Amino acid sequence: MPDSSHDAVEVITAKRDGHELSDSQIDWVISAYTRGDVADEQMSALAMAILLNGMDRREIARWTAAMIASGERMDFSGLSRPTADKHSTGGVGDKITLPLAPLVAACGVAVPQLSGRGLGHTGGTLDKLESIPGWRAALSNEEMLAQLDSVGAVICAAGDGLAPADKKLYALRDVTGTVEAIPLIASSIMSKKIAEGTGALVLDVKVGTGAFMKDVDSARELAETMVALGQDAGVHTVALLTDMSTPLGRTAGNALEVQESVDVLAGGGPADVVELTLALAREMLAGAGRDDIDPADRLADGSAMDAWKQMVRAQDGDPDADLPVARESHVVTASSSGVLTRLDAMAVGMAAWRLGAGRARKEDPVQAGAGVVWHARPGDEVTAGEPLFTLLTDEPARFDRALASLDGGYDIAPAGSSYTPHPLVIDRVG
Amino acid sequence: MPDSSHDAVEVITAKRDGHELSDSQIDWVISAYTRGDVADEQMSALAMAILLNGMDRREIARWTAAMIASGERMDFSGLSRPTADKHSTGGVGDKITLPLAPLVAACGVAVPQLSGRGLGHTGGTLDKLESIPGWRAALSNEEMLAQLDSVGAVICAAGDGLAPADKKLYALRDVTGTVEAIPLIASSIMSKKIAEGTGALVLDVKVGTGAFMKDVDSARELAETMVALGQDAGVHTVALLTDMSTPLGRTAGNALEVQESVDVLAGGGPADVVELTLALAREMLAGAGRDDIDPADRLADGSAMDAWKQMVRAQDGDPDADLPVARESHVVTASSSGVLTRLDAMAVGMAAWRLGAGRARKEDPVQAGAGVVWHARPGDEVTAGEPLFTLLTDEPARFDRALASLDGGYDIAPAGSSYTPHPLVIDRVG
Repeated sequence: MPDSSHDAVEVITAKRDGHELSDSQIDWVISAYTRGDVADEQMSALAMAILLNGMDRREIARWTAAMIASGERMDFSGLSRPTADKHSTGGVGDKITLPLAPLVAACGVAVPQLSGRGLGHTGGTLDKLESIPGWRAALSNEEMLAQLDSVGAVICAAGDGLAPADKKLYALRDVTGTVEAIPLIASSIMSKKIAEGTGALVLDVKVGTGAFMKDVDSARELAETMVALGQDAGVHTVALLTDMSTPLGRTAGNALEVQESVDVLAGGGPADVVELTLALAREMLAGAGRDDIDPADRLADGSAMDAWKQMVRAQDGDPDADLPVARESHVVTASSSGVLTRLDAMAVGMAAWRLGAGRARKEDPVQAGAGVVWHARPGDEVTAGEPLFTLLTDEPARFDRALASLDGGYDIAPAGSSYTPHPLVIDRVG
Repeated sequence: MPDSSHDAVEVITAKRDGHELSDSQIDWVISAYTRGDVADEQMSALAMAILLNGMDRREIARWTAAMIASGERMDFSGLSRPTADKHSTGGVGDKITLPLAPLVAACGVAVPQLSGRGLGHTGGTLDKLESIPGWRAALSNEEMLAQLDSVGAVICAAGDGLAPADKKLYALRDVTGTVEAIPLIASSIMSKKIAEGTGALVLDVKVGTGAFMKDVDSARELAETMVALGQDAGVHTVALLTDMSTPLGRTAGNALEVQESVDVLAGGGPADVVELTLALAREMLAGAGRDDIDPADRLADGSAMDAWKQMVRAQDGDPDADLPVARESHVVTASSSGVLTRLDAMAVGMAAWRLGAGRARKEDPVQAGAGVVWHARPGDEVTAGEPLFTLLTDEPARFDRALASLDGGYDIAPAGSSYTPHPLVIDRVG
C-alpha cells in the first residue's frame, strides 16, 4: 500500500480514541518516522496514546517487525555452532553478562552479545569492560563474526544499522515521559535482539526497587510480552524474573564488577552471582539445544576463564593487566551490631552513580575505579564500628551526595533477629 | 519560584499518571514552552496526557492565566462605554458576527471583536469581510481603540501579542491529534478573550453535525468550562448552546454571507439569522448592563445599518460597492416533490469549502464569490425539478467534489409528511 494512504493525525487519533492500529498504519508510521515524514512531536503524542491506551499482541508484533524492517539484520547461519544471547532489563551490580558470555562459549554455544552503555543508576556492560586496559567496544560486523567463530563469545557495541527506528524512538521517549510503556519497552528490546539474529534468547527481567519494574505483575507482563514477540519471530525465547530489591554480588562499579566477574570465572565470587550466571547459562544452553552440558563443570575446569581471556584479548584488552583503582575511598561503618535485614538496590545504585561510576547524560564520561563495595549482604551479622560500605571515587567532593543516597537504604535489626531470604529467581516465563 | 524547579519529563509524567498539576508546574511549563525550553515533542506528549486524563477547574484556570501571562493584555477602561464581545465555536453559514457587532454598537455598547480566518469546513469572519472591496483586517491597537471610541464596533485580526503561547500550542495540537481536549479548547479560546480585555462575553457554543461538538453533553461541558474561566477572571460570561445540525441562513460563502448580513441589517434576512443575532445581542447588552435597550428597535430604525457602514468605512471598505460574484454556477434540482426534512450542516460546509470558499492549509487563498445557496430549509416544501441548491465557484473543476459532499446530505420526505423543527437556541449556561 502506498505511504500516502495514511497520515500522522489519523494514526494518532485512532490510538487516542482506543482503537487498534492496523498493520498498514503501523508499517506506515514507523517507516515515515524513520525517514522524517512523521515529526518528533507527532510520534511523542502517539507514544503517549500507546502508553495510556495500550497495544494488543498483534499490534506489538507488527510494531516490532516494522522497527526491524527499518534497518539491517545480522545472519549467523554460517557459524559452525548454535547461537544464544541474553538480555537483562538492568539492575544494580548486574555484571552477569561478563562471566556468562565466556561460560556459554566454553560450552560450545556462540554468544553474540550486543550491549550498551549505562545511563542513570544502572551500570552498562560496555562501561565495565572498558575499564580493562586496551579493550575496545566497537567491532565491524566482520570482526564480530570472526570472533564468534574463533572464540565463541563477543560483547560489543550495537552498530547503528540495527533497528534505527528504535534508536530514534528511544531517544524521543526518554525526553517525553513515554519510557514506561510495556508495548514500547518490549518492542524496543526485542526488535534489536531479533534483528541481531540470535537463535535462542534468555531474558533476565529484574523486579524490585533497583529495577525498572518495581512489582512482579508488571515484570511478568513485560516478560510475557517479550517472550511472545520472540516466539512469533522464530527465536527460542524464555524469561526469568529475578530479584533486584537487593543489588547483585558485593560491588557496583566498573572495574569493581570486572574483578568480581573474574573471581566467578576463577571458581569463586559471590554466591548469588554464581547462582544467576549458572541459571541463565542453563537456559541459554537449553534454548540452543545443548542441555546435555552442565555449565558448572566449565567453571570448575577453567575453560570458562580461558574463553574470557581469549574474548578480552580478541578485542585488544589485556586480561592480566591491573584494573584501575579509585584515588579516594571512604568507609561507612555499622552504627549498631545485629543482622543486616535490608540493602536497597536503588540506594546502592544511586550512590555508585553519584561516585562517578555512571553518567547523567549520554555524553558524560564514567570513572573506571568508582563505585560501592558492601561488606555485608542481607542475612549477614554486622558489628558496630566495623566497615559496612567502602565508597570509591577519584573526586572526593562526590562522597557527600553518595552518602546521602545510602542514607535510609539499609536496615540493621538487633542481634539474633530472624531473616528470611528472598529467592533470587522468582519465576520463569516461556 | 525559579524556573529550574521543574523539568518537562516531571510535568508530563505527573499528568500521564493522573495527578493534578501544581500552579508552579503549569506556570513553568507554559513559560518554558513559550521561550523554547520545553520542546514541541514534550508539549505534544503533555497535550495527549491532558486530553486522555483531563484537568480540573483549578488547573484549567491556571493554564489559561499562564497563557495570558505569556503576552500582552489590552485595556478598554478608557472608553466612554462598556464593552461586550461574542465568540462562536464555529459553524456553517455562521455570519452572525457581521450584523451583531454593529447592532450592539448601535445600542451603545462597544464591541472589540478580534477574529480569525477559516480553516476547513467552517468559514472565517475576516475572510467574509475581506470580500468587501477595500476592507482591511489588520489594525494597530491605536486604530482599534480609536474606532471603538468613534464607531463603537471593530472586527479585526488578532495581533501576535495576545497569548502567544496559545498560538504556538494551537499549531502544535493541530498536527498531533490533540485538538479535541476540552480543557485545551476552553483555555485557548478564553485566554485570548480575557487578554483582549472585554468586560462582558457571550459564547455561542455550536452543537451538531456541522460543529466541533457533535453532542449536547460535550458542548455543555465546554460551555461550563469556559463560563467558569471567564467568571474566575472577572469577565461577565454566559454561553448559549445553539443548533448546528442545519446550517444558518440560506448561504455559505464569503460575499454570499456578507450580503445576507446586510439583508438582516436592512430589516430582512433569514428568520434564523435574525433570531440568533437578537438572542446574542440581548445577552451582550445584559452582560454590559444595558438590558434596558431592545436591539430589535435598532434593526428596525436603521441605526444598526448606519453603524455597519461606519464600521466598514473606518477600515477602508466601501459598504455600497458591489460584492464579488463567482464566475460559474451549477444548480442542483430536487429529485422528488415533498418536504425537506434534513439539511446537513457538515455536507453544506464541505461543499462550500470544496468550491473555494474555505482553505485546506493556512496559506491557501479563498475565493470571495464561491459558496452554496440553498433554496429550501428544513420544513419547506420542494418540487421535483425545481432548484434546491446553487453552487458557485470561479473554477468549474470544483463542482464534482462539491456535489459529492452534498450527496446524502439532505432528505426529502413525501408531500404532507410532518416535520418538527429543532429549537435554534438549545440551552443557556451562566
